[in-house]
Amino acid sequence: MACCVRVWLMLHVNWSCGHVLAELSSLKVLNCLGVGSMLETLTGKYGEDSKLIYDLKDQGGELLSLRYDLTVPFARYLAMNKITNIKRYHIAKVYRRDNPAMTRGRYREFYQCDFDIAGQFDPMIPDAECLKIVHEILSDLQLGDFLIKVNDRRILDGMFAVCGVPDSKFRTICSSVDKLDKVPWEEVKNEMVGEKGLSPEAADRIGEYVQLHGGLDLIEQLLQDPKLSQNKLAKEGLGDMKLLFEYLTLFGITGKISFDLSLARGLDYYTGVIYEAVLLQQQNDHVEDPVSVGSVAGGGRYDGLVGMFDPKGRKVPCVGVSIGIERIFSILEQRVEASEEKIRTTETQVLVASAQKKLLEERLKLISELWDAGIKAEILYKKNPKLLNQLQYCEETGIPLVAIVGEQELKDGVVKLRDVATREEVNIRRENLIEEIRMRTSQL
Amino acid sequence: MACCVRVWLMLHVNWSCGHVLAELSSLKVLNCLGVGSMLETLTGKYGEDSKLIYDLKDQGGELLSLRYDLTVPFARYLAMNKITNIKRYHIAKVYRRDNPAMTRGRYREFYQCDFDIAGQFDPMIPDAECLKIVHEILSDLQLGDFLIKVNDRRILDGMFAVCGVPDSKFRTICSSVDKLDKVPWEEVKNEMVGEKGLSPEAADRIGEYVQLHGGLDLIEQLLQDPKLSQNKLAKEGLGDMKLLFEYLTLFGITGKISFDLSLARGLDYYTGVIYEAVLLQQQNDHVEDPVSVGSVAGGGRYDGLVGMFDPKGRKVPCVGVSIGIERIFSILEQRVEASEEKIRTTETQVLVASAQKKLLEERLKLISELWDAGIKAEILYKKNPKLLNQLQYCEETGIPLVAIVGEQELKDGVVKLRDVATREEVNIRRENLIEEIRMRTSQL
Repeated sequence: MACCVRVWLMLHVNWSCGHVLAELSSLKVLNCLGVGSMLETLTGKYGEDSKLIYDLKDQGGELLSLRYDLTVPFARYLAMNKITNIKRYHIAKVYRRDNPAMTRGRYREFYQCDFDIAGQFDPMIPDAECLKIVHEILSDLQLGDFLIKVNDRRILDGMFAVCGVPDSKFRTICSSVDKLDKVPWEEVKNEMVGEKGLSPEAADRIGEYVQLHGGLDLIEQLLQDPKLSQNKLAKEGLGDMKLLFEYLTLFGITGKISFDLSLARGLDYYTGVIYEAVLLQQQNDHVEDPVSVGSVAGGGRYDGLVGMFDPKGRKVPCVGVSIGIERIFSILEQRVEASEEKIRTTETQVLVASAQKKLLEERLKLISELWDAGIKAEILYKKNPKLLNQLQYCEETGIPLVAIVGEQELKDGVVKLRDVATREEVNIRRENLIEEIRMRTSQL
Repeated sequence: MACCVRVWLMLHVNWSCGHVLAELSSLKVLNCLGVGSMLETLTGKYGEDSKLIYDLKDQGGELLSLRYDLTVPFARYLAMNKITNIKRYHIAKVYRRDNPAMTRGRYREFYQCDFDIAGQFDPMIPDAECLKIVHEILSDLQLGDFLIKVNDRRILDGMFAVCGVPDSKFRTICSSVDKLDKVPWEEVKNEMVGEKGLSPEAADRIGEYVQLHGGLDLIEQLLQDPKLSQNKLAKEGLGDMKLLFEYLTLFGITGKISFDLSLARGLDYYTGVIYEAVLLQQQNDHVEDPVSVGSVAGGGRYDGLVGMFDPKGRKVPCVGVSIGIERIFSILEQRVEASEEKIRTTETQVLVASAQKKLLEERLKLISELWDAGIKAEILYKKNPKLLNQLQYCEETGIPLVAIVGEQELKDGVVKLRDVATREEVNIRRENLIEEIRMRTSQL
């Protein structure tokens, strides 16, 4: 497949104030051409309107960039419009000067799918909802086993403090910890000590904490930890983590959630709870624990970002999640390719066909009736297509029904309705056809 | 409203090989921030990932532009991927260096919504389908009276030839004719003669033709026209126009379609039939014909465009239509504002509320059950919200049902279900609640 083509799975997101149902209803091959084009591609196509083509060379001296994610623009939008309370989803493209890795769903231009809840609320209620949403999406998409790792920036910062990391090194050490899902501890430690000048003792202390993962029991254990429990930030974070796990227990989803001290997430803007969902795969020998095969969602709380865009620095607490739909699509595509399963690329319910020549007018009349009744119908764009070709087209494209008009049918006031799978044909009175098609397709 | 905010009407397009149902199901306030951002907005937010931000200054020396429409990229896509047969819709943003006129739905960055049918088919069958789609969308959206003007580039070119326009001036005279929907004939004539060097006699001959509009009768009349009927191109175009009107008659939509010789459309790439849909408004005095208040859809046949991108020049005939959704949204927004009608911005079916304090856990348990059953539910993110506040929230946001848990209800194994509109309350046994909510909301 050419690099600019991808199978785009229609993602129907029913988001209603906390409830999200992501449903992969059908596969559509869509054109995913970039927004940016070579200038020569566009010139000479629009006549006198060509002057309206945007040329990126000259934008009035402004330094412009392409959107990197949806979170920062969302925060700016809240600040500019003085919105203090909103919940929304947003699916749109973002751009990264990255090295594309198509097979792993990494592109320079790709879709993000974000949910965010902004507003001053009681602790951890919206945060728990975000995790419920991630859990629901990953379960409904049937991507296989997954795990949602949860941590809190305040616990990390408290941990760094009690391990002896100087304040000024919190962010850079945090971004070293963030690499633990890809490289072994020894390498991360080398980076901390060699490149970032942390003392080996401090690194070793961090190394002990970041091995820990668990649930409520681990939270309780750390609340009793002689060092961590003395740190104000860590204590706050652990208290909220406990509350979060209580809510997640009520949602019945703790089975897939792990409080994991090695989860850091690199972005600077997080201020509280952070999370990341990874898909799990059984190892070959089936003895060890399943291993992570990559992140498919991530997010967290960012209470300071909106304030950075507000002239008066007014804060709007936010929590959100980004679903890695490109990564998810590439997994689903690979599965489809492996299974050799045939995927329907249209939702057409019925092909309007003719048994003899010279019946184009009759086909057009009938299809118009079906369209007007809201039925998804199609004809071949030929004046006199052969019946065999019309039936073959249905087999190839997976259209389940054929409505056949022929001279005899027209005389009798009926339409022959054929079930493509069973090849059964029945004559249906014209006035009952729409109802019959509706009934049959609602059973599919 | 700030200029970067617009009400984005969810457009559900059910496109199935010819059948399109555009349904405005709900109003959502969405963030319409641009793809391009000020560099300073993005820097300092992503920590070490900042190096991935796309900076438009330096793209390896390539001249890049932003996409101007969806048609040229579609044609390039077909050529690059050697696709000779496809039907698709595409909704995405395009960019124009235009002077924005927000109230008329004209922006520099805006959505286009395109349908195209590519492939070698029998004449005018896909073309008729495109017009049926435009008719269906504009009817279903209930935008008021509309008219779809139809013409053909070959008829225009034939007309220019028989009027004495030199071949080299066809395109530029065509773009003068294109202005007739905005400026009077006298001005257009001045431009043709004064600026473009056409003889006044040729202009006058054009002036007579471009007044003509009608249906099959006009086509028949022009097929008999002593001059036009001698021109090969015009004759071809008129023959196809006749066929098109026969198909449109079978679709039952000729009442809203006018063959109009003044319709030109400026874009260079059209080669055959062209069309444009305009909304009509009754004049104040109700005596004259209704006047056009702007174009809301347009398109046509472009048989040469794909070949321009194919190394061997292989042609793929195409016909398509672009729906002016921004313009349509601005009309619907104005109507909503004028009517003072309250538009629901969510699809929430039920609010889970509590009658007393300390029932957050019970609310979370209940909402989780509802979410798991696919019901769109919401809670207030407060530990102990007042019942009155919860009910008021439903009134304000238009949530139709409230599921109230209280101590007595918990004891009795019921949930109090309140109808927000009628204020009626009934106790529903907990095990029947989901079914009851489904039943009630399916009637709404």
